[in-house]
Amino acid sequence: MGEFEIIDHYFRGLNGREGVLVGIGDDCAVVDWPGPLAISTDTLVAGVHFPEDADAASIGHRCLAVNLSDLAAMGATPLGFTLALTLPQAEPAWLSGFASGLSRLARRFEMALIGGDTTRGPLTISIHIIGRAPASGSLLRSGGQVGDGVYVSGRLGGALAGLEFVRERGLSATQSEWVRRFLEPEPRVELGQQLAGVASAAIDISDGLLADLNHLVEASGCGASLTLEALPVAAGLTDFYGNAEGLRRAVCGGDEYELCFTVPLAQASSVERVARETGVALTRIGELVPGESIHCQLHGAEWQSGEAGGYEHF
Amino acid sequence: MGEFEIIDHYFRGLNGREGVLVGIGDDCAVVDWPGPLAISTDTLVAGVHFPEDADAASIGHRCLAVNLSDLAAMGATPLGFTLALTLPQAEPAWLSGFASGLSRLARRFEMALIGGDTTRGPLTISIHIIGRAPASGSLLRSGGQVGDGVYVSGRLGGALAGLEFVRERGLSATQSEWVRRFLEPEPRVELGQQLAGVASAAIDISDGLLADLNHLVEASGCGASLTLEALPVAAGLTDFYGNAEGLRRAVCGGDEYELCFTVPLAQASSVERVARETGVALTRIGELVPGESIHCQLHGAEWQSGEAGGYEHF
Repeated sequence: MGEFEIIDHYFRGLNGREGVLVGIGDDCAVVDWPGPLAISTDTLVAGVHFPEDADAASIGHRCLAVNLSDLAAMGATPLGFTLALTLPQAEPAWLSGFASGLSRLARRFEMALIGGDTTRGPLTISIHIIGRAPASGSLLRSGGQVGDGVYVSGRLGGALAGLEFVRERGLSATQSEWVRRFLEPEPRVELGQQLAGVASAAIDISDGLLADLNHLVEASGCGASLTLEALPVAAGLTDFYGNAEGLRRAVCGGDEYELCFTVPLAQASSVERVARETGVALTRIGELVPGESIHCQLHGAEWQSGEAGGYEHF
Repeated sequence: MGEFEIIDHYFRGLNGREGVLVGIGDDCAVVDWPGPLAISTDTLVAGVHFPEDADAASIGHRCLAVNLSDLAAMGATPLGFTLALTLPQAEPAWLSGFASGLSRLARRFEMALIGGDTTRGPLTISIHIIGRAPASGSLLRSGGQVGDGVYVSGRLGGALAGLEFVRERGLSATQSEWVRRFLEPEPRVELGQQLAGVASAAIDISDGLLADLNHLVEASGCGASLTLEALPVAAGLTDFYGNAEGLRRAVCGGDEYELCFTVPLAQASSVERVARETGVALTRIGELVPGESIHCQLHGAEWQSGEAGGYEHF
């Protein structure tokens, strides 16, 4: 099966969408999407970002989900994406599974696959995603002000546990849910859209709450104070790992793709409305403070993770 | 050196350009570039698309050049790109060389690097490129009509020879020029822009003249007849390989990144003007004919390459 047949057979069905003047099959796609546009790229490498033998449909879901999460963190509306797929071989069962996971998520957000490149090599997937930036202004990392509340969506720590269980069989329901969180993260697209005009700053949690919030406070030129007893920890995590380690995983674990965002006091009541309308739990875990670091408290005592911040690839 | 330091140190200088509202450093870039936009992606894998030990600056040049070539084939004007860089390790000398080759070409075309992702893994570079589609309409593969002349830019066959000599030392000047053609192809951006409104169809030559022209005639619903004695063969090629093999390499060799395009008879005089204004040799090598295949003639006799068309990755 050649490069052109792969694109034709597995991916051409995602070609259409309003504003796509030229889709897959020419030297470039041509799109007429009114700006401003939000644009991002994320790469997943087998053996680094997911186990080599992970389910192909999950890989398809995950590589688009992590890119959608970047749009979500800006409050942007998904429009389309390109797919640069490097494969050791063209295996129909794998390609079919991969395309199904990818397509399901793309259709859910009415996205067009506007271009791609299929090459031979170690399994590596780069997606480049394009969305419409919100009319009320993009959710930047730099918009936070001292006094703003710090919030997170969902519950944290499950994805890291899932990564550790991903190769095991006979898992409990709770463990299976952690694995699903790792393999098939839910990008918070609608939440991000609703937060545009409400939140002052936002970031998605890919490297871990502390590491990502650290990017936000650095960009906003302030510090943060967190009250960890308020932190929503993934179901079953402290039962399994104990209170201290369960909490540490929720604070430091990556691959969550929840949103961490800040909201001015005057907008605090809007957060409840957004939570209701999106059906996503939103929890206030602290506030922005003067300074340039993040202080965590647990039941009134200072808490430290014992880790240097965030995942570094090199 | 961490992921953020790599981006900061080597690539942040390319961040600015008119219309870039948010550059590198947030979850997405935000751009306000009036559409329609031409968008493409191309991936280079070490050991597949270039030798693992190729000069880092050449790799930096090449990975952007092949993407610029896709914009050129549409007649589009470069605006910006994202860079998904997967590296086995963060080696400062390599990164510095890579960034210098990439930056030189980016600056020449006034492009902004608007985003990226740096991950650990086997050396793989995906660039996603964005340009402004020409106001007179994009140069599609599908616009050719029976009777249109078929043209190529530059001289063909050198890049394939260069690939074979790329690891050798003590090369002749001619051989070094072939290697340069392979490692540092010249994207025909200005030529593509000038051909918008003149050419009826265009494609860039990445897989080989015959293979790529075949895509064009398929999309245009016709065939082509080529007169190979007119084909501009790279300097020194037939001296080195003999007439027959030199010609075969010019007809079938990939990695050229010259443009192959078609021009209606009524526009034929404009081709000379475009050649003069761009300084690029443009040669008429045949015409579009009824049917669905490409026939090649050499001194009145039918000529066959003896190859199935084009490079297939799988």
